[in-house]
Amino acid sequence: ADRNRPKPPPANNEYAKDPARHPALKVHSVAPFNGETPGSLLVDSYITPSDLLFVRNHLPVPQCDPATYTIEIRGTGVQPTRISLEELKTKFKHYSVTATMQCAGNRRAQMDSAEKPVRGLMWGCGAIGNVVWTGVRLRDVLLYAGLKLDEDGIPDVRVQHVCFEGSDVASVTKEAYESSIPISKAMNPHGDVLLAFQMNGQDLPADHGYPLRAIVPGFMAGRSIKWVNKIVTSEQESQGFFQQKDYKSFSPSIDPNKVDFSTAPSMQEFPIQSAITSHVDGDAVASDSLVELKGFAWSGGGRKIIRVDISIDGGKTWQNADLNEEALQQPSGRAWAWTPWTLTVEVPKAHRGELKVVCKAVDESYNSQPERFDAIWNPRGLMNNSWHSISLNVNSSAN
Amino acid sequence: ADRNRPKPPPANNEYAKDPARHPALKVHSVAPFNGETPGSLLVDSYITPSDLLFVRNHLPVPQCDPATYTIEIRGTGVQPTRISLEELKTKFKHYSVTATMQCAGNRRAQMDSAEKPVRGLMWGCGAIGNVVWTGVRLRDVLLYAGLKLDEDGIPDVRVQHVCFEGSDVASVTKEAYESSIPISKAMNPHGDVLLAFQMNGQDLPADHGYPLRAIVPGFMAGRSIKWVNKIVTSEQESQGFFQQKDYKSFSPSIDPNKVDFSTAPSMQEFPIQSAITSHVDGDAVASDSLVELKGFAWSGGGRKIIRVDISIDGGKTWQNADLNEEALQQPSGRAWAWTPWTLTVEVPKAHRGELKVVCKAVDESYNSQPERFDAIWNPRGLMNNSWHSISLNVNSSAN
Ligand SMILES: [Mo]
Ligand SMILES: [Mo]
Repeated sequence: ADRNRPKPPPANNEYAKDPARHPALKVHSVAPFNGETPGSLLVDSYITPSDLLFVRNHLPVPQCDPATYTIEIRGTGVQPTRISLEELKTKFKHYSVTATMQCAGNRRAQMDSAEKPVRGLMWGCGAIGNVVWTGVRLRDVLLYAGLKLDEDGIPDVRVQHVCFEGSDVASVTKEAYESSIPISKAMNPHGDVLLAFQMNGQDLPADHGYPLRAIVPGFMAGRSIKWVNKIVTSEQESQGFFQQKDYKSFSPSIDPNKVDFSTAPSMQEFPIQSAITSHVDGDAVASDSLVELKGFAWSGGGRKIIRVDISIDGGKTWQNADLNEEALQQPSGRAWAWTPWTLTVEVPKAHRGELKVVCKAVDESYNSQPERFDAIWNPRGLMNNSWHSISLNVNSSAN
Repeated sequence: ADRNRPKPPPANNEYAKDPARHPALKVHSVAPFNGETPGSLLVDSYITPSDLLFVRNHLPVPQCDPATYTIEIRGTGVQPTRISLEELKTKFKHYSVTATMQCAGNRRAQMDSAEKPVRGLMWGCGAIGNVVWTGVRLRDVLLYAGLKLDEDGIPDVRVQHVCFEGSDVASVTKEAYESSIPISKAMNPHGDVLLAFQMNGQDLPADHGYPLRAIVPGFMAGRSIKWVNKIVTSEQESQGFFQQKDYKSFSPSIDPNKVDFSTAPSMQEFPIQSAITSHVDGDAVASDSLVELKGFAWSGGGRKIIRVDISIDGGKTWQNADLNEEALQQPSGRAWAWTPWTLTVEVPKAHRGELKVVCKAVDESYNSQPERFDAIWNPRGLMNNSWHSISLNVNSSAN
């Protein structure tokens, strides 16, 4: 939508030190920088190359010096503790986790219409990617800071949430970007929450949180705080803007001017999602030809993808897509990585004009995607996981 | 559907010792007994009275003597152990868990049609109920039998599944009813899996597993094995019929005569579900009157219900139902009990004839229900969680 076209950087340029970005990224906003991976490149590989992963920044990229970088841990049930980046890397065991990051705004553009507009950056399907993150476990760091567990391994019951603060600070409010996750996720030995210093085997790039990022697998990406420098254990969830006044969804009949944010819980785990990425609306294909469709499926909470259904008749009949073998090796309940899929379909011989291709997925809890976005419409266009459909344009095979 | 009308008991009556049942249960099969709670009674109380809970039996009710009843534990990573019912009750700490049981076949009748029939008992909305279960934790019993945990509390990696066997044995095959759950659920201190001997504060009724039943909160009821007398830890899931050849779902375009059961995982956690129970199709209401609608919502995996949307115009506009207060007190991720809802709606003044009432729910992972059952159709009509809709019949208020 035109009203959402990227604006030029502001005159007083806090963003001058932002890093260079890959020219292939589709830019939605320059300052702060927001850009997505083009569909044509999105599932070229199981692991998204670091410089092609979507960037979703809320503020200028902070300039962090690794030599002096520390992380502060404080709050209920822990000893106030400061750990340098060097200590973090040397005192704690390293873990690598392959986890998909998906912005809660991914596929927002497909929820936008003139009658019911949504507010935010107009992400297509590319605000998602799959990365090998390496770092230390948040669990180990909180235990080091003195958090107590009972004989079942359940943490101090006064601690219900873990709040992360980033080094990115708004120049106006002087407030850091912050957000929280439930303690049950943070301390679950199967939860795989990391404080990561590497992405795909190398230091994190500046845009993705150099030198340290919280990684919360199976949650919306906005909880994986970049440039994290403070961790606070608490009875309460974060009182920050992005926890309390954004990233919530409401009845599709809500009046956007009368939203009471206290009536909905903050988004954490992602619902089941999938999309077609190899083609876009209007792409031409020849009748009586074979077309290789590609895309991804992913579900939050570590729920494994068990099936992707593809239709080339607008949802009347369905074929099973072929699922990526590496993705299928993931353990039940800890399937943090996406499942790329492919399917070669035959364009019907006699068909001319519009061919409606639809994609929907199922996860191991047998949750499925809603058919239409109308049923999950919300003012910010968040977590659009309705069936993804595109219209191909069938020409005679002689063309 | 007529073809699914209950058959009379067979001549050689293995079922003669089955207990008496509450006359209000809507009977789908006499031998084995299968009956559901009528909608009019379903959400009268947060806790379902024991004699009104749906009964889903596969075999005759076994006659178990509590004085001699034992449970055998064996398999990978445990010492073969036999525990009497008395020891179970005296050696282990007791826990009470309020958990909803829902049959995977609930709402099957709404997935059945002449063109695409489904196979099984024609459950309406009442193969669900909410119960306080009291017993000992499966976790504690497996630890007692010698199952080892690592320093993070993760069990012996060779053990991936826990298989339950019931005392109910098929006279033809001599095979016990059996099923398994993942070890991650069994041993999770937040998983709340019980070996229960009480239902709503009293001994289990015969129909619900007297004297001992496995209770697996957040899973389809078929994994909560009644009359459990054997527990086997294993690398593999149960090889039994109900794990391997039933309780799986496939593409809606599958040929029912060509199902390859190895291509789908067994159902465990339930997806998001809701239904209207206060009214049925064709119920008369007066125009310009107030009508109190009632129903339930529930999701598997302990995922809390965050919203129930009600429409009285077939899904064009939506109102938020009022959610049961007790249900809302449940912790995130451990919301094992259903959420009864109510909403008083105004029947439009000018309206006559059909009023289409629709219900759909959202859980804390922001998963939602599919609009139409076509998209999730499967040959056995399992896990139908499509939007529930009923047509009320609006008469003039003078009637
Ligand atoms: Mo996001
Ligand atoms: Mo069931």
